[in-house]
Amino acid sequence: MIKVGIIGSTGYAGQELVRILLGHNEAEIKWYGSRSYVGTPYADVFRNMFTLVPDICKGEDLEALCEEVDVIFTATPQGLCSTLVDENILSKVKIIDLSADFRMKDVNVYEKWYGLTHGSPQYLEEAVYGLCEVNREKVRQARLVANPGCYPTCSFLSIYPLAKAGLLDMKSIIIDAKSGTSGAGRGAKTANLYCEVNESIKAYGVTTHRHTPEIEEQLTCASGQETVINFTPHLVPMNRGILVTAYGSLTRDCAEEEIRRLYEEAYDGERFVRVLPAGICPETRWVEGSNYVDVNVKKDERTGRVVMMGAMDNLVKGAAGQAVQNMNLMFGLPEYTGLLMPPVFP
Amino acid sequence: MIKVGIIGSTGYAGQELVRILLGHNEAEIKWYGSRSYVGTPYADVFRNMFTLVPDICKGEDLEALCEEVDVIFTATPQGLCSTLVDENILSKVKIIDLSADFRMKDVNVYEKWYGLTHGSPQYLEEAVYGLCEVNREKVRQARLVANPGCYPTCSFLSIYPLAKAGLLDMKSIIIDAKSGTSGAGRGAKTANLYCEVNESIKAYGVTTHRHTPEIEEQLTCASGQETVINFTPHLVPMNRGILVTAYGSLTRDCAEEEIRRLYEEAYDGERFVRVLPAGICPETRWVEGSNYVDVNVKKDERTGRVVMMGAMDNLVKGAAGQAVQNMNLMFGLPEYTGLLMPPVFP
Amino acid sequence: MIKVGIIGSTGYAGQELVRILLGHNEAEIKWYGSRSYVGTPYADVFRNMFTLVPDICKGEDLEALCEEVDVIFTATPQGLCSTLVDENILSKVKIIDLSADFRMKDVNVYEKWYGLTHGSPQYLEEAVYGLCEVNREKVRQARLVANPGCYPTCSFLSIYPLAKAGLLDMKSIIIDAKSGTSGAGRGAKTANLYCEVNESIKAYGVTTHRHTPEIEEQLTCASGQETVINFTPHLVPMNRGILVTAYGSLTRDCAEEEIRRLYEEAYDGERFVRVLPAGICPETRWVEGSNYVDVNVKKDERTGRVVMMGAMDNLVKGAAGQAVQNMNLMFGLPEYTGLLMPPVFP
Amino acid sequence: MIKVGIIGSTGYAGQELVRILLGHNEAEIKWYGSRSYVGTPYADVFRNMFTLVPDICKGEDLEALCEEVDVIFTATPQGLCSTLVDENILSKVKIIDLSADFRMKDVNVYEKWYGLTHGSPQYLEEAVYGLCEVNREKVRQARLVANPGCYPTCSFLSIYPLAKAGLLDMKSIIIDAKSGTSGAGRGAKTANLYCEVNESIKAYGVTTHRHTPEIEEQLTCASGQETVINFTPHLVPMNRGILVTAYGSLTRDCAEEEIRRLYEEAYDGERFVRVLPAGICPETRWVEGSNYVDVNVKKDERTGRVVMMGAMDNLVKGAAGQAVQNMNLMFGLPEYTGLLMPPVFP
Repeated sequence: MIKVGIIGSTGYAGQELVRILLGHNEAEIKWYGSRSYVGTPYADVFRNMFTLVPDICKGEDLEALCEEVDVIFTATPQGLCSTLVDENILSKVKIIDLSADFRMKDVNVYEKWYGLTHGSPQYLEEAVYGLCEVNREKVRQARLVANPGCYPTCSFLSIYPLAKAGLLDMKSIIIDAKSGTSGAGRGAKTANLYCEVNESIKAYGVTTHRHTPEIEEQLTCASGQETVINFTPHLVPMNRGILVTAYGSLTRDCAEEEIRRLYEEAYDGERFVRVLPAGICPETRWVEGSNYVDVNVKKDERTGRVVMMGAMDNLVKGAAGQAVQNMNLMFGLPEYTGLLMPPVFP
Repeated sequence: MIKVGIIGSTGYAGQELVRILLGHNEAEIKWYGSRSYVGTPYADVFRNMFTLVPDICKGEDLEALCEEVDVIFTATPQGLCSTLVDENILSKVKIIDLSADFRMKDVNVYEKWYGLTHGSPQYLEEAVYGLCEVNREKVRQARLVANPGCYPTCSFLSIYPLAKAGLLDMKSIIIDAKSGTSGAGRGAKTANLYCEVNESIKAYGVTTHRHTPEIEEQLTCASGQETVINFTPHLVPMNRGILVTAYGSLTRDCAEEEIRRLYEEAYDGERFVRVLPAGICPETRWVEGSNYVDVNVKKDERTGRVVMMGAMDNLVKGAAGQAVQNMNLMFGLPEYTGLLMPPVFP
Repeated sequence: MIKVGIIGSTGYAGQELVRILLGHNEAEIKWYGSRSYVGTPYADVFRNMFTLVPDICKGEDLEALCEEVDVIFTATPQGLCSTLVDENILSKVKIIDLSADFRMKDVNVYEKWYGLTHGSPQYLEEAVYGLCEVNREKVRQARLVANPGCYPTCSFLSIYPLAKAGLLDMKSIIIDAKSGTSGAGRGAKTANLYCEVNESIKAYGVTTHRHTPEIEEQLTCASGQETVINFTPHLVPMNRGILVTAYGSLTRDCAEEEIRRLYEEAYDGERFVRVLPAGICPETRWVEGSNYVDVNVKKDERTGRVVMMGAMDNLVKGAAGQAVQNMNLMFGLPEYTGLLMPPVFP
Repeated sequence: MIKVGIIGSTGYAGQELVRILLGHNEAEIKWYGSRSYVGTPYADVFRNMFTLVPDICKGEDLEALCEEVDVIFTATPQGLCSTLVDENILSKVKIIDLSADFRMKDVNVYEKWYGLTHGSPQYLEEAVYGLCEVNREKVRQARLVANPGCYPTCSFLSIYPLAKAGLLDMKSIIIDAKSGTSGAGRGAKTANLYCEVNESIKAYGVTTHRHTPEIEEQLTCASGQETVINFTPHLVPMNRGILVTAYGSLTRDCAEEEIRRLYEEAYDGERFVRVLPAGICPETRWVEGSNYVDVNVKKDERTGRVVMMGAMDNLVKGAAGQAVQNMNLMFGLPEYTGLLMPPVFP
């Protein structure tokens, strides 16, 4: 039985970790960490957990925590994890960081886009980018995994097969993404009040969103071409879900069937990436509550571009589910353990 | 492994049965019955099931079906199940009927409120009302279970402890209930379009809703007093969830603590009924996607009335989850098998 | 042209006042008061007002304000208005207070339910409860109007005809009310975040909500009978709208037609109260954005109770619209001036 | 007083015409046309109009209608208007067609994208594309106006200043658009049920949506360059609103301030197009219920592209409001008559 500690268990992603791990037969949560709710019963913060979680929230003392558990999930704001990890901790526990701290290899890129000083750049090289579909073998060996961002996961998986095949002009890619509101976190801000979000849609972080370099780095890596993208996220009045609509120009003409075959081959055997039948667009409702990513691609004969699409639950495959997928790999379990819940509809 | 057939698998309750049974280790769906989608892949109707359900929808031929399965769920419109069951079928399979056909013992009450002629009143006596928390032992022996209605389940469980204790004036009860829109079914009606339901709330079926006599019969049975209620359902702009706010006069004065103790005793050991701490009101968000019912009660010292409250997912405990709970009992499995998924939030 | 000042113009009710007054031919806003946004352009707070309102937010200095305007609306938290008004101010301007400070005649009731010390109880007698349909003549003469609460407006107008006719047992009344989320205000609280409110419904303030004594006082006044009620508000995932479902016992049997006739007579000539046709239930979507209240009543022959229903926009008839209706009366304008916008659907 | 007839008054756009015209001092609706509701009181179809519209729905007999009114709005499915108009009718009344029948000059383009045979191609040349901001003078003289589509209105106005200035590579444009659900109409389809739309977002009509050639024609006209675009609409869980996020490459480098100046100049004096301050993204909530379009533009220094954004109410500026704006021009009224209602928030 894997003993688990969660730092940041009282945010939306942290709570989703709890939900998933309660159904995981090989893991047991030993530490519900929180900054704001230390001493409060966890089920008082999230009443869905009433009778299911009797624990009291604890703090963020990693020194103490690493003595009690085998793996620590950090579902915390950017900049925290990198100041907490050190050799002592990494020698005792595995770390799966849901923040951005270890996602990019170049510390300058991190510091520029995040406006933070990185607390432990010496681990950037070692950290494994935990996109299991791509880095499965590295994850198995890792002691520090950078869990991918929600937008990057969905964006990358939507584009990956074409990028890998060298069929995309990597300077032509435009990613127009849409996210449910849980992605904005549980902080009490006027902009996230019900009446401010409901019945509206907006773009935000236009040309400046911090997931941009993360996507570029992964696509550069996959394609072997320097990738520069436009990335525009939008806030959608729904709780969960990310939809990516990405556009790109082909480097040579090829038929839609050939393109779709690349997707099927790239994701052959992948349990959590579902290549939809031709002509069917991904919709977030079909993946809600699950670890699945639905992808598809359509070629526009008129413009020569491809439209690459993906849908995913931002809290599951985009955060907690992918984190558990990483944990499973790191501990030698079947990758899908605890992650087979079907999407909840409606 | 229990072999399962579902008649009406392409409605919302039917699909929820599929979702739940996919996670049930002791059951396997052998027949996805549908009236509108015969010949269509099930996953084309509900794309959340893509890669999870390869089956093609079949029809409603109970004669054929009962040769292939151990239990049949009928998630069909009122009046269908009662015309389909007969001695041959009941000798071969167990039936769990999610419609109202076998919920009331008095055929006249059924025919008056539903405006239908009952197709097999000879089974009304035998049929067991499948509210596990009350009729657990009878369900274990049953071959025909009437799965309770969504509003009745939540209403009854909110009121039951006080009714059983004889503390309620059974003529004083007013039940004001609120339901998410999945309760209205998947039929294409203008009234259920997104733009008609969104950003609005309304009462419907005022003084005439067909769940009224079902609730009255169960409360009469629990209290030993003839019960006549006001029941008013409301349509709420959300997918899932039922909230019940019920009002009643006490037959004698007693303190709120005493009243709450009755609830705790009545539901002691019940896994799926959660009596919330004093002062905490049930909210549907805390039970969504799960088989839990959250209940609580508050006494109004000024008026001498009690306010009894319950929240539940109408598709789970109010339909498919309770049906599986009944199946588990009927087949000698632990009652909670396949039903322990925590509520999904947000 | 009436010169208007608004204290609390940056809350939802304050902004709705602005929206309505922009379409009012006889009024002009001279002062956009705010506590949090002094010095900020009003249109930076509410961008719907971009190009429509060039003004900068000012503070809450009533002494200065009363020199510049003819009427002041106070859309502020409870307890503020009563500390601001004095003889000097009242001699110069008319006050329409959207808070609860002057709604109840008995200062003890106010102080008990609101947990505040009243700042100027000497004006309680003079203040007119601004429910135009009942107190029209008094409002015309008033210099201080207490604008009714949102729940009380809808509750009272739903019940009033039967109460006035003496046909209701005034101890039997139960009001189950449902409100959109704008009623919770624009303060940044976790409980009002999108993901906390969306896809859920809950009761709150059960047996203790502060609108209870206000409703009781008005119904006592209308019926001549001491009225004690159960009042239970619920939070609904929608922006605007209040729905009231009220239950009461008749003091003598009478037919539904007779009861409906009482409604039609009571509201004969009332432009903003619409008695719906028999059998049609009010729905909040049909009044959104407008000053209309839709009401109806149904008798339950089985229980002898009546179900009284009302729907209204909480920000218009429940706050800003009613306030403007009061202003119109106080300044001798046609009552409906600036208030004839049809409901916005969908 | 302009006498108005509406064909298709019982759809969402038709109802919005009614709402707007009820507040228009110079127009009066004489004919509420409907296919499905002939003989039904209009207020029974849309109860927001109870007490406001006493009329009974009539049919679609244009011969009779043109004797009674000065202008006819056709808010009907594609293909109807073009089969109804003829010289007799056009000699007696002005026609404002909200369908696509007269939007494109090339009948082949229409017939290819819409899969319909055009009923009266002889009027294509005469028909004026009713985008007032561009064709104001032509609209004043027109007897047949093609009211622009919702997506084209918002897309075009978001891109127009740069296209007109010759600064955009007209083969580089990608329009990613998002619409509320009222755009899908009031037909009873499963796909538009509340539970199917709520809590989800999807792309649809990818590479094939029929608004594509309309946008291309208008941009070609504005830029003098043949324009070929990618256009992807998405369905968003909200009632109203369209958001456009468009991407394009510049033909020469120029600073964001210069670009923004083009927008300010292009829309100088335009009452209904609001160029937002630098850095502020359009949001649909700020225009809901109004005739305003909010636009802005941002340059991405990294990719050299511009991101052009627009937000609008699809039923107002995208349909009924723009139609009334056209009517005002055609009848010599101030363009904004009846259209000054501020956006409704929240």
